[in-house]
Amino acid sequence: MNFFSSTFKLGILGGGQLGKMLLYDTRKFDIYTSVLDSSNEAPSKVACNEFHLGDLMDYDAVYNFGKQVDVLTFEIENVNVNALEALEKEGVKVYPSSKTLKTIQNKGKQKLFYRDHDIPTAEFSRFAYASEILDAINNGGLKFPFVWKSAQFGYDGNGVKIIRTESDLKDLPNVECITEEMIPFKNELAVIVARNSNGEVATYPVVEMEFHPEANQVEYVICPARIDKKVAEKATGIALKVSQAFNHVGLLAVEMFQTKDDEILVNEVAPRPHNSGHHTIESSYTSQFEQHLRAILNLPLGKTDSKVGGIMVNLVGAEGYTGNVVYKNIEDIMKMPGVTPHIYGKKQTRPFRKMGHVTIVNEDLNEARRIAEEVKNTIKVICE
Amino acid sequence: MNFFSSTFKLGILGGGQLGKMLLYDTRKFDIYTSVLDSSNEAPSKVACNEFHLGDLMDYDAVYNFGKQVDVLTFEIENVNVNALEALEKEGVKVYPSSKTLKTIQNKGKQKLFYRDHDIPTAEFSRFAYASEILDAINNGGLKFPFVWKSAQFGYDGNGVKIIRTESDLKDLPNVECITEEMIPFKNELAVIVARNSNGEVATYPVVEMEFHPEANQVEYVICPARIDKKVAEKATGIALKVSQAFNHVGLLAVEMFQTKDDEILVNEVAPRPHNSGHHTIESSYTSQFEQHLRAILNLPLGKTDSKVGGIMVNLVGAEGYTGNVVYKNIEDIMKMPGVTPHIYGKKQTRPFRKMGHVTIVNEDLNEARRIAEEVKNTIKVICE
Repeated sequence: MNFFSSTFKLGILGGGQLGKMLLYDTRKFDIYTSVLDSSNEAPSKVACNEFHLGDLMDYDAVYNFGKQVDVLTFEIENVNVNALEALEKEGVKVYPSSKTLKTIQNKGKQKLFYRDHDIPTAEFSRFAYASEILDAINNGGLKFPFVWKSAQFGYDGNGVKIIRTESDLKDLPNVECITEEMIPFKNELAVIVARNSNGEVATYPVVEMEFHPEANQVEYVICPARIDKKVAEKATGIALKVSQAFNHVGLLAVEMFQTKDDEILVNEVAPRPHNSGHHTIESSYTSQFEQHLRAILNLPLGKTDSKVGGIMVNLVGAEGYTGNVVYKNIEDIMKMPGVTPHIYGKKQTRPFRKMGHVTIVNEDLNEARRIAEEVKNTIKVICE
Repeated sequence: MNFFSSTFKLGILGGGQLGKMLLYDTRKFDIYTSVLDSSNEAPSKVACNEFHLGDLMDYDAVYNFGKQVDVLTFEIENVNVNALEALEKEGVKVYPSSKTLKTIQNKGKQKLFYRDHDIPTAEFSRFAYASEILDAINNGGLKFPFVWKSAQFGYDGNGVKIIRTESDLKDLPNVECITEEMIPFKNELAVIVARNSNGEVATYPVVEMEFHPEANQVEYVICPARIDKKVAEKATGIALKVSQAFNHVGLLAVEMFQTKDDEILVNEVAPRPHNSGHHTIESSYTSQFEQHLRAILNLPLGKTDSKVGGIMVNLVGAEGYTGNVVYKNIEDIMKMPGVTPHIYGKKQTRPFRKMGHVTIVNEDLNEARRIAEEVKNTIKVICE
């Protein structure tokens, strides 16, 4: 198949910010693209060749869309996986595959997969309903505190809760879920692994998620992680092991904990371009988006080294503001050296909504970190 | 004016490859864009919010288009400058200005401008018609060899000819033109200067155009130029002087000759993103396209340092092939480290047509140069 030919068509399920950034790089290669999304205001609508309206969880919408393309990928995990399976049977190349996605979509299955493949991960229990958790506690099978996660559709921090007392249980939705032991970690790390269908594999440098000391929220994604070389090698090795187990095609972002004893435990994975890889647009020889394209089109993978140190800050809606978005002080951050804002194009802001991100690159990572803090303290996502 | 607001509209005259690459970066900032081009197959059609069909040399087409936008820019010099003047009078911000463009559009005026502003440039004569050149030769006012240039619409190597004998004169179009003394130069250099309407100025590192030893065609654009620091400083100083003389807003690419005696002579300028700056997408902290946007939107200018060494190779149609384009061996060049092809999206190739470019980046410029040669010897732009 000639991906640069005029008859080739790449389908993308989801028209959000990840799809939009992926589309920048399809333009570079002049690849014909078609996007399916349920919103007429989808950020990537303007950057694709064809845009189709449809529900990503609807079998017919996904199936009919997929029948019109040569290669199908997705920028969000919440898509109808049965439709993907049917498409694969009929010869459409779906990357990552329905099999990979099925395992990842359900957090219980994902945890079992790690156990089956001897991949280190936090201890866990599975529950068909949240209401069963109390029985487990009463039987002595589960001890406070622990982490509760919805098995499905937990995304971007939704569907995750720390449970410290019985009263924390009462507001949980009564759905399939898992509980995990709380890991007192030193660092949260991530490695993005790319793999094409020839089996060529490339890993990006380990990144570190730096948390706000009080709010317990990720404030900065830092590349490379400020950790021992040995720990970085261990994390990369485990990410590769996860990649081999999935045998995925495309990107796989592997999020991990570095424990107090420098053990590495896999937290969860995403089979697509990932927030922890946004810095690559500016910092790496090959952006994660170009790499995802190379992987799913079975092209040779690009060099994953960093040109310079990179730090990413998410732009989220400030508390107390809901309405037409305004990026206050954006011009002030653009004065700072090596600072590039990425605005996703969502018209409405609300508290904690992801509206964009800012990358800070510098030869000196400490200097980048200093500027990143200045960026964080300067720009505010508010409304008119 | 809030450029990130939903009511702001940026107009771009021309929908070619430069406009397309400029549009990548408008997406990054989520700027609403409208493009005017005479071809329904214009490469940037897919990447803008609005596309309008119209002749860029037609007063009404440009005027009516310009009335609908807040800031108007262009990716090609051949646009109706009278329409730009009228729009400026009515409050549309046109960057670069009609005044800058008017001087640049006519090579005779451009040369006079250099002379008036004490900017070093090759000796020249102006002619209302090419037929007058012979008189000048016969009068002893002009000596072979010299360079003939059409005063208007000379673009991408068209409208330029080296005249060695009287017989070379006979095929020239009988239009307004200039003749220039032939400069036996050591190097052809270029510096891109960015300026916003606040008067903030930034210069990119000096680049070098390396010529094929026999074909006398530019083969590689190399950043930074492999020249003495003193020569680089001189070239940058002269580029800044040209920028100050024009008082332009936006980018100004200044092409210069380094003579055998290390004199610097200005050859010509382009008031827009330029072929000599394509490498910045991968090599610089700020791509020339993002910088042009920052400049015309009066945003702070980005850092112009290089992250790594960069080399650009143009992808032009191979001789003997006219038809539906095929990029032969593109997968082979994508295997090489730090190599990124940019395909412009033109469906038809013909000999020497610019179909794309390839950037090679590496920490070691010599290694980049070695890989660039491999790229050049591998990929071929042919047809089905």
